[in-house]
Amino acid sequence: MARDYIDINTLKFQLFEVHNLEEILQNKKFEDHSTESISMYLDSVKEFSDKEMFPYIKEMDEKPAYFKDGTVYVHKQVATYMKKGGEMGLFAATFNYNDGGLQLPFMADQAATFIQDAANNHLPGFGALTQGSAELIVNFGSEELQKKYVPKMLVGTWQGTMCLTEPQAGSSLSDITTKAIPTENKYYKIKGQKIFISGGDYQYAENVVHLVLAKIEGAPKGTKGISLFVVPKHRINSNGTFTPNNVETIADFQKMGQRGYCTTHLGFGDVDDCYGWLVGEPHQGLNYMFLMMNSARISVGRGAAAIGMAAYQAALEYAKERPQGRKLSNAGKKNPKEKQCLIIEHPDVRRMLFLQKSIVEGALSLVLCTSKYHDILHTTTDKKEKEKYNLLLELLTPIAKTFPSEACAVSVNNAVQVLGGYGFCTDFILQQYYRDIRIFALYEGTTGIQSLDLLGRKVTMKNGKAVALLAEEIHKTIKNAAKIEILNEYGEKLASELKKIQKVIAFLMQYAKKGNYERFLADANLFMEMLSYVVISWLWLDMALKAKQKITESDNTYSVDFYKSKIKTMQFYFKYELPKTTSLTETLMHKDVITIKTEEKMLF
Amino acid sequence: MARDYIDINTLKFQLFEVHNLEEILQNKKFEDHSTESISMYLDSVKEFSDKEMFPYIKEMDEKPAYFKDGTVYVHKQVATYMKKGGEMGLFAATFNYNDGGLQLPFMADQAATFIQDAANNHLPGFGALTQGSAELIVNFGSEELQKKYVPKMLVGTWQGTMCLTEPQAGSSLSDITTKAIPTENKYYKIKGQKIFISGGDYQYAENVVHLVLAKIEGAPKGTKGISLFVVPKHRINSNGTFTPNNVETIADFQKMGQRGYCTTHLGFGDVDDCYGWLVGEPHQGLNYMFLMMNSARISVGRGAAAIGMAAYQAALEYAKERPQGRKLSNAGKKNPKEKQCLIIEHPDVRRMLFLQKSIVEGALSLVLCTSKYHDILHTTTDKKEKEKYNLLLELLTPIAKTFPSEACAVSVNNAVQVLGGYGFCTDFILQQYYRDIRIFALYEGTTGIQSLDLLGRKVTMKNGKAVALLAEEIHKTIKNAAKIEILNEYGEKLASELKKIQKVIAFLMQYAKKGNYERFLADANLFMEMLSYVVISWLWLDMALKAKQKITESDNTYSVDFYKSKIKTMQFYFKYELPKTTSLTETLMHKDVITIKTEEKMLF
Repeated sequence: MARDYIDINTLKFQLFEVHNLEEILQNKKFEDHSTESISMYLDSVKEFSDKEMFPYIKEMDEKPAYFKDGTVYVHKQVATYMKKGGEMGLFAATFNYNDGGLQLPFMADQAATFIQDAANNHLPGFGALTQGSAELIVNFGSEELQKKYVPKMLVGTWQGTMCLTEPQAGSSLSDITTKAIPTENKYYKIKGQKIFISGGDYQYAENVVHLVLAKIEGAPKGTKGISLFVVPKHRINSNGTFTPNNVETIADFQKMGQRGYCTTHLGFGDVDDCYGWLVGEPHQGLNYMFLMMNSARISVGRGAAAIGMAAYQAALEYAKERPQGRKLSNAGKKNPKEKQCLIIEHPDVRRMLFLQKSIVEGALSLVLCTSKYHDILHTTTDKKEKEKYNLLLELLTPIAKTFPSEACAVSVNNAVQVLGGYGFCTDFILQQYYRDIRIFALYEGTTGIQSLDLLGRKVTMKNGKAVALLAEEIHKTIKNAAKIEILNEYGEKLASELKKIQKVIAFLMQYAKKGNYERFLADANLFMEMLSYVVISWLWLDMALKAKQKITESDNTYSVDFYKSKIKTMQFYFKYELPKTTSLTETLMHKDVITIKTEEKMLF
Repeated sequence: MARDYIDINTLKFQLFEVHNLEEILQNKKFEDHSTESISMYLDSVKEFSDKEMFPYIKEMDEKPAYFKDGTVYVHKQVATYMKKGGEMGLFAATFNYNDGGLQLPFMADQAATFIQDAANNHLPGFGALTQGSAELIVNFGSEELQKKYVPKMLVGTWQGTMCLTEPQAGSSLSDITTKAIPTENKYYKIKGQKIFISGGDYQYAENVVHLVLAKIEGAPKGTKGISLFVVPKHRINSNGTFTPNNVETIADFQKMGQRGYCTTHLGFGDVDDCYGWLVGEPHQGLNYMFLMMNSARISVGRGAAAIGMAAYQAALEYAKERPQGRKLSNAGKKNPKEKQCLIIEHPDVRRMLFLQKSIVEGALSLVLCTSKYHDILHTTTDKKEKEKYNLLLELLTPIAKTFPSEACAVSVNNAVQVLGGYGFCTDFILQQYYRDIRIFALYEGTTGIQSLDLLGRKVTMKNGKAVALLAEEIHKTIKNAAKIEILNEYGEKLASELKKIQKVIAFLMQYAKKGNYERFLADANLFMEMLSYVVISWLWLDMALKAKQKITESDNTYSVDFYKSKIKTMQFYFKYELPKTTSLTETLMHKDVITIKTEEKMLF
């Protein structure tokens, strides 16, 4: 078992120095907080994670959640996490004081949850879903619903869930069939089935509050006819006692990873006795859900980045302790009497470690950057600023979900490789991270869905205004880099990358303009990958700039080596990862059309 | 569970048409065989695999091998496989008649084992290791050793193993410490420990014959002092009874994948009563082992390609049956009343399927190509031809091991993604293939070790003669493509890729010439990746040529669609994969040096 799971200095450097949380704290809403108090909050979360989360990660994998006689059983640490985490305010962090919250910026909450994810990625989902569903009720539900459900959720006594997917529909929400039948009372009767419901039921949850997408009878077809309901496992009587609400757990899903985090198949109203209460207006369910979905997607990216971080720490620790082989520098005169070197001294091992570092810290930076935009969007009163950050956030959210999910899986794969055969063995944690992280490219909209969203909706939005705004932000960084001798060339490289992106967009837009959406979107996935490299390179250049500034100022918050390592890792990313855009451009603009004209009989 | 695991037509097309087994069968050694008889042999192996292998793959994962009270317990199907497989001659296929073999070409044996690997990758290793260690004894052992051990091994009654790795040494064989102490008798006393020994011990093996690398007392330091020994679990008395040989199973390794294939930690001679018999000459052990290691490495590639094939078949089956979403071609006028389409109709799903097909069949082609070279090398009497195929084989073997291991892992990852959330669930087989295949980049020399071998030894060998010979072979294909209108441009592209490779080699060789091996080899891994794309593109162009020829000849061995699909998949590989060499060239020739000058303190 590795000794640690996070480089907390890097997290704080990014939060406080690179992404300058201070700017957000200027807002009156956050006047009670300071960088010092938030730094202390992170320390207390780290302490909690050290004690209550990290020690259980392996055990939660080895003794997975299971389903028996209608009930789901999870590891007992889930109960401890929900109780103690609730007491600490972890699930209420971003809520306003009058909702029982800590009124923290989203950025700070993301940083705190990143620590938890890195410590034990099987636990934070229970809290995050509870927080997310409580947010839906607070934002769109009636005061009555808020009073009834939110307080118990924010302290972790009641679990919250999001119920979207159905067996026949998968990613295609327009095809959901769960019905809501109006009654003469305030409630609807709910009938249908939902699958892949994380935290959907378990023995320790006093109640489970499901936020369910369903169609009111007679609603329009497609996504326009979807409404949102609160459907508790137990109805709450006026005296506070419970009545079962005919929400049954039909089965669970046994998974390759995140095995401590239960996933359920739920049935609503099989004996016609399931009540649901409408949230907000009828037929607005998907709009409400998607307002939350954006931050949920950033959170998926955060989780993946955190697993990548934990795997990197474990691989780094191993590489610094394991002797094996001789240095390549002596290859010409190999001397078997020479002592073995540590594997971190082999260039290829270093390459694998730098690759992990560059991906993981790049992914974290994207998560914090989008989280900051989220904070600005939700606090600014300036209309123009609101529009700007809304567009930037819309554009970057699918990337913030996808890049960490895909690239950190590659990163973890490299961490496994650093350990050699031991990486494949269950005595070491790496193989678990390898399994755990695989779900992130599927959660909350697969990579394919995110890529269609990015190219099909976000790039084309308002005539490409979001991309133009992003280019402006990147050019600010390039301008700053131009002033620093050792960074200037990387800024220039980035400027040429932006031109490539624009060339590819112009090429693809031809097809969109002709109404040939299939051709336009066929390689959306590759476009996602290409834009991701550019965005992460931008964020790395920004980190290098900040590090360089700290060295110049002789700021000793962290060591000089710490700052230098940021510049080195930026250079690594520009050498090893960014050049991939050249090949992607070649493919994206290739004349051969393979995947749309081909009939399926070509595939054997 | 998927219904099938292999496209047998593609295997036969490659073996008989593309790689023309017929040419090998011309050799007198194989005069009893014909393409028809070998096709029938493959059919019988397929039937055997359908019945005795494929039905058990999931169960072998769910009830993994385990260690208890000094014994390893494996699934009972291991016993059936070794017995029935032995009776069929599966493990004796390549041996000469007088050794009890079927005297089949290596190519044909590889094709037959590919079927078994695809059916259930947890089983063939038991046979392959037995076959490999018997080969070592036949090639280098005394007649006495041959008579004593080989017959029982070839029928699967006795298990064979290869014991190389030790806890303190890993990939660095020069650091092994297992000792062989000469006695006054014919045997040595063996003392030491070996780890990661596949098939090292289990309840059904009547005896286990270990081929052990050890150092005779007083031997030279380093790899030069390594000898090879036969060390049985039970010594065979003159009357055929057994005496325990003080080989103890200390523990097993529990793994993330291939859980039915046991991996052991063995102790030799802890009470000083372990006898070992020298194979061949003292201090030649590593040479002997490496002669076998080359075919073992091709076999690792074969196993990875086979898992990729099985995963592709499962994903393809799912994509052809699962309805979800609407066609992108109607995106402008989405109509929710329209019926859902099958997911294979989505371009991105097709892209993922073509990617898998192109990687898996490309990998198979490389395995068969190198296997054919192996056959030529071992049958030709022409000295020049022998040198040529020896060099080609030396060059291509690290690629044949590495490309399938790395690229088919990516392929399986895409197969998981095709299934969406179900891909992550244990009810479906994909997640198992995802775990199983991860070991292949570690087996028999990691990707890092293979890459050092490729660039450091094979490319530089005889002043680059192996690369020149490969270029010649590729130019033959380019010349043939030039005659066919639709293929000509792909040939031209390939010619330009060869120039890129030569440019990169020339660039890197500067450093080798200056004795700067660290700089020369630091990015060997990327060079491996780059050369792999070119080699696989060459093999695809060759497959497309053969398919085009069959269409022209109206050969109806397979359908026209079957042949067309090969051309389409070649085009896919040239559009989506081959362009990656451009970026790799940029990185390989980049001025920044990150991984060799960096001190380890740069890595946090």
